[in-house]
Amino acid sequence: MTEKKPGAGLRGQSAGQTEICTVGASGNSLRYRGYAVDELAEKASFNEVAHLILKGHLPNQDELDAYTSRLKALRGLPDALKEVLERIPANAHPMDVLRTGCSFLGNLETEESFDDQQDMADRLLATFPSMITYWYRYSHDGKRIDVETDDDSIGGHFLHLLHGKAPSELHARVMDVSLILYAEHEFNASTFTARVCASTLSDMHSCVTGAIGSLRGPLHGGANEMAMAMLEKYHSPEQAREDVLRKLEEKEKIMGFGHAVYREKDPRNAIIREWSRKLAEDVGDDTLFPVSEIVEKTMWDEKKLFANADFYHASAYHFMGIPTSLFTPIFVMSRVTGWCAHIMEQRANNRIIRPGADYIGPEDRSVPSIDQRQ
Amino acid sequence: MTEKKPGAGLRGQSAGQTEICTVGASGNSLRYRGYAVDELAEKASFNEVAHLILKGHLPNQDELDAYTSRLKALRGLPDALKEVLERIPANAHPMDVLRTGCSFLGNLETEESFDDQQDMADRLLATFPSMITYWYRYSHDGKRIDVETDDDSIGGHFLHLLHGKAPSELHARVMDVSLILYAEHEFNASTFTARVCASTLSDMHSCVTGAIGSLRGPLHGGANEMAMAMLEKYHSPEQAREDVLRKLEEKEKIMGFGHAVYREKDPRNAIIREWSRKLAEDVGDDTLFPVSEIVEKTMWDEKKLFANADFYHASAYHFMGIPTSLFTPIFVMSRVTGWCAHIMEQRANNRIIRPGADYIGPEDRSVPSIDQRQ
Repeated sequence: MTEKKPGAGLRGQSAGQTEICTVGASGNSLRYRGYAVDELAEKASFNEVAHLILKGHLPNQDELDAYTSRLKALRGLPDALKEVLERIPANAHPMDVLRTGCSFLGNLETEESFDDQQDMADRLLATFPSMITYWYRYSHDGKRIDVETDDDSIGGHFLHLLHGKAPSELHARVMDVSLILYAEHEFNASTFTARVCASTLSDMHSCVTGAIGSLRGPLHGGANEMAMAMLEKYHSPEQAREDVLRKLEEKEKIMGFGHAVYREKDPRNAIIREWSRKLAEDVGDDTLFPVSEIVEKTMWDEKKLFANADFYHASAYHFMGIPTSLFTPIFVMSRVTGWCAHIMEQRANNRIIRPGADYIGPEDRSVPSIDQRQ
Repeated sequence: MTEKKPGAGLRGQSAGQTEICTVGASGNSLRYRGYAVDELAEKASFNEVAHLILKGHLPNQDELDAYTSRLKALRGLPDALKEVLERIPANAHPMDVLRTGCSFLGNLETEESFDDQQDMADRLLATFPSMITYWYRYSHDGKRIDVETDDDSIGGHFLHLLHGKAPSELHARVMDVSLILYAEHEFNASTFTARVCASTLSDMHSCVTGAIGSLRGPLHGGANEMAMAMLEKYHSPEQAREDVLRKLEEKEKIMGFGHAVYREKDPRNAIIREWSRKLAEDVGDDTLFPVSEIVEKTMWDEKKLFANADFYHASAYHFMGIPTSLFTPIFVMSRVTGWCAHIMEQRANNRIIRPGADYIGPEDRSVPSIDQRQ
């Protein structure tokens, strides 16, 4: 790598205004429209948070009931989309499946006018769990599942489709909390992708499809998958501690720690850690959770690196029987709320996003005839 | 719209370095790796320009022959992709078709390592004409076409598939020039979308899929389609002139004029205008070309607004029998070279693109219980 310019990655440069979120504005906080994420995770459901992010305010009981019914009614998939999902091989990257499902749906249910944008957002929010599980169960189990369940929550709906039975109250609640924690994070790379696309006044499916593609990148989504891949190799806290010390010594990267914005802690970590602890008790785990704890402690003691939102998500999802390859698709099911809110915000006060570049290539030159080329 | 902040749309801010292109660096010039686009359009073929943009240098004869053979051999579509294209309705937006085709192909031919990036780029370059025409002919004519032709040029291949017969030399040459003119344009919104996605180290299909979504927006691609929609309404130069004067009077937007970067002229306009003139002579046109000329003259005389690259592309494509809805997909067939070059450049010296935002939303507040909400 050559030397980084100060502006590399646009770090610290403002690319616009937002009313949706602050990251680290007051210490180590994450707030959606002014509400702290930890308080939302304690007192609200994901349907309430989705309503907050997409419609601008927390719903009252009537609004929440109506929104829950609406999202439940939007879970079905068109036959043509199912046929497309059936043609995606079992070894495909699950993020490629969602990217393709979202893009294909745009052919069938095209956003013809921005008046439809709230409907488009609700539809995507309602269908992503159906899409990913329909493909997963078909490609892995050969089953064409019915994607319409009666679960009130999106997380419960997802677990129901994945496992073929209604989830426990505990599991449904943990999924709900998880979706709250991942819902929104200001101008991160996938959201910024969605806003760049929105700034050309393109349609909602294009913007969200692009965002999924960016979240797929290992520098963005996927940290919880990589944390799981590490954690599941350890059979005891002692082994975990030794291996982490060795990794640190050898300067190997350890996923699920530190953050680009937060400096002292990730406000989402304590929440998902406690839910993971409850899940560990529930399943009688005596390895994965203690292993996770010792890794967290070792990273802090040795490097003052804190666990971020992704770290305990690994064990929490694992305890609920979710295959590791579906961890990042869950991120999509949640973050689609933030993406769509940012798309609508970009549209409301738009200027096409078109930065400049510093040219460092060849000077002006003439085209040589082909026989004069090296 | 509220007041624009100085940084709106990142205008004038550098988002990175590039060796690929300059736009307006010396007057009204467009240069690919130092070569002026007008000289390339005169002396080179699109396969040579694609090689220049993607591989970094103009090919010698042996390299060009090998590259031409290679691109020809990569034109076929997997059966599963054809089956997906067959499920997209005839009234879908053709850009949604390409976005979906690109995304779906990523499931079958996933970029597992960046070592494969040049292969991925070549494959997309070779398959986009096959994808769009396969869908178009199937959905419009009910025909499952054979997408492997023996045409050397990508433009000739496209016309062959679209019309079911090999194009004339003139048509093949005009398509080739057109693909040269649209191949690359620095950090425009679709290319920047591709770079933001690439900065998460996501795969080539994700980046290009996102770029297609951004090019779909009416503020970016599509100007030539809108110019055509206007031009085809006029039956005489007199009528065209009067209507343009009326539009200007009523402050209606007229597409195909002016440019965000060029100030006095678009260097691509004179080239495509002359080719459109030759095509007009060839088909014996006595309306569309004179109408286009009078619109160009009126816009200049009245407003000092110059025709950009899109304006005469409308008539040129029309003379070659290309349906207006396929104009922007042709842009994709060409610009995929620029996109992929920028993706590779971003990867070679990467920092994740993550700008900041100015928060203008609600202040910190507590979550009210649901019965206390309005």
